[in-house]
Amino acid sequence: MGDERVLAIDIGGTKMAVGIVDPGGRVESYERAETPKVDAEGLWRLVEALLDKLPETNLVGVGVGCGGPMQWPAGEVSPLNMPGWRNFPLRARLRERYPSLPVRVHNDAVTVAVAEHWRGAGKGSDNVLGMVVSTGVGGGLILGGRLIDGASGNAGHIGHIVVDPGGMPCACGGRGCLEAIARGPALAAWAQAEGWRAEQDLASATARDLAADAARGHPIAVAAMRRAGRALGIGIASATHLCDLDVVAIGGGLAQAGPLLFNPIEATFRAHARMEFARHVRVVPAALGQTAGLVGAAALVFEGDSYWHAG
Amino acid sequence: MGDERVLAIDIGGTKMAVGIVDPGGRVESYERAETPKVDAEGLWRLVEALLDKLPETNLVGVGVGCGGPMQWPAGEVSPLNMPGWRNFPLRARLRERYPSLPVRVHNDAVTVAVAEHWRGAGKGSDNVLGMVVSTGVGGGLILGGRLIDGASGNAGHIGHIVVDPGGMPCACGGRGCLEAIARGPALAAWAQAEGWRAEQDLASATARDLAADAARGHPIAVAAMRRAGRALGIGIASATHLCDLDVVAIGGGLAQAGPLLFNPIEATFRAHARMEFARHVRVVPAALGQTAGLVGAAALVFEGDSYWHAG
Repeated sequence: MGDERVLAIDIGGTKMAVGIVDPGGRVESYERAETPKVDAEGLWRLVEALLDKLPETNLVGVGVGCGGPMQWPAGEVSPLNMPGWRNFPLRARLRERYPSLPVRVHNDAVTVAVAEHWRGAGKGSDNVLGMVVSTGVGGGLILGGRLIDGASGNAGHIGHIVVDPGGMPCACGGRGCLEAIARGPALAAWAQAEGWRAEQDLASATARDLAADAARGHPIAVAAMRRAGRALGIGIASATHLCDLDVVAIGGGLAQAGPLLFNPIEATFRAHARMEFARHVRVVPAALGQTAGLVGAAALVFEGDSYWHAG
Repeated sequence: MGDERVLAIDIGGTKMAVGIVDPGGRVESYERAETPKVDAEGLWRLVEALLDKLPETNLVGVGVGCGGPMQWPAGEVSPLNMPGWRNFPLRARLRERYPSLPVRVHNDAVTVAVAEHWRGAGKGSDNVLGMVVSTGVGGGLILGGRLIDGASGNAGHIGHIVVDPGGMPCACGGRGCLEAIARGPALAAWAQAEGWRAEQDLASATARDLAADAARGHPIAVAAMRRAGRALGIGIASATHLCDLDVVAIGGGLAQAGPLLFNPIEATFRAHARMEFARHVRVVPAALGQTAGLVGAAALVFEGDSYWHAG
């Protein structure tokens, strides 16, 4: 058992990473590359090139987190920020490459949530919402100790909980979604409209810059963190009342702002999550870092009873 | 198997019902009484009196739905509208009375949702939100074919999803909860403030009156249904995005308004639930009537693999 390893793959619009993960959730070997703007086969060749760099080991399966949307569990992926892949048969390609191994593919925010439940901030709790707040706002739900897939593998879309019904249009076509307010680019645009880094090109003024400026006390940047925190606190209160959670673990670029973000989250969350059963919920920073996606992808294989309920 | 029966009990602030339910979900014998304003032992004696009226049968267990909140799964109940029971050991009392049988107690909105999943509008779907919209707004969640209990048995509290963050105070202590807007008494109060039945005592002007007046075309009553429908549509959109549902089944007094309520629910739901995976969701009236609570209570025993994950 101890020498079994899972090949883990984490594919997003910014980077691709592959690794070998042990049963304890440790990433033993790791390769990564920026995601290029190339066609479907060019992207696949890069995945194979990264895989070729990994050492030979005793693999028991392949676990993958990939940007959504996707046909699930078929693993035909159309990542929003990877126009080269539209209905790309990622799971089928990996099955061809590893014909003797189980191959399991899920949304990359889901694998991060799984990682936080398996080895991170949600370890030991049965009811966990894991969130990633960066370019988008995504998540995954573990309830009763089991990953919740939903009807089409899309459970966990906390970014599209409605937190301001008359508010900003969302890219999804709706209005007032959490993501429309709290995603990094929306926050940076809001801050710039308020006068933050007015001289800078918006595309190069990122949410990480905003978080860093907030840490230095820039009043508009601090207000942007409060704005995000309020929206997040409302969304988390709704999720808590609906799902009766133990732990909400928040990662992603914006979470790097620390208490400047988590304090307003906590204040708004406590103001709205007033049912007695919600009192024990802990809203905490994610414990795992950049490799969370690989750890969670590996858990789809190592802990299939908890995290994989598809064929 | 065919001659096995479950003793089902449904206890709320308005009425108490007991019945014998067969494995197909049919209620064979049925007794009910109004819930009196008496002390803890007086309430228990009434439960026992109802049970004594039922015929002798081959019981395999006892299932109970009871108004919350409660300590779960201990089944120590403190129903909001039954001041006589505070931490009343309902499950323990029933175990004393039926020492050889399993006794299972859950929230009464949860048992209604279970019934709709087992034998009602959600039958055949794995991801169902069942809702009860009447004096309060409650619910229960079935995901992946399993009842979701949450950390303390309180999952399903859709009434306390936030649909209007700056809106009306809610009895829970929060603000802008779905229940604060769409519960019958709040709607009736809103309508009366707008001029509906201004001469009538509010306590006697109920949500059923409001639904009936809406059916007759009373403009304020129709507007009240739209108001409720908008709030419900937003809350259901949030729940759908978070949980990736197949079916939302809505029962309770307000649902009797039919299309006058369901049309605005549908319009608002579709405006906000814009993720592609949400398109297939059906929002429908509950299929079971007054005995849904008994049917769901029985399912806690008959279908424990799906609906009972506690000791």
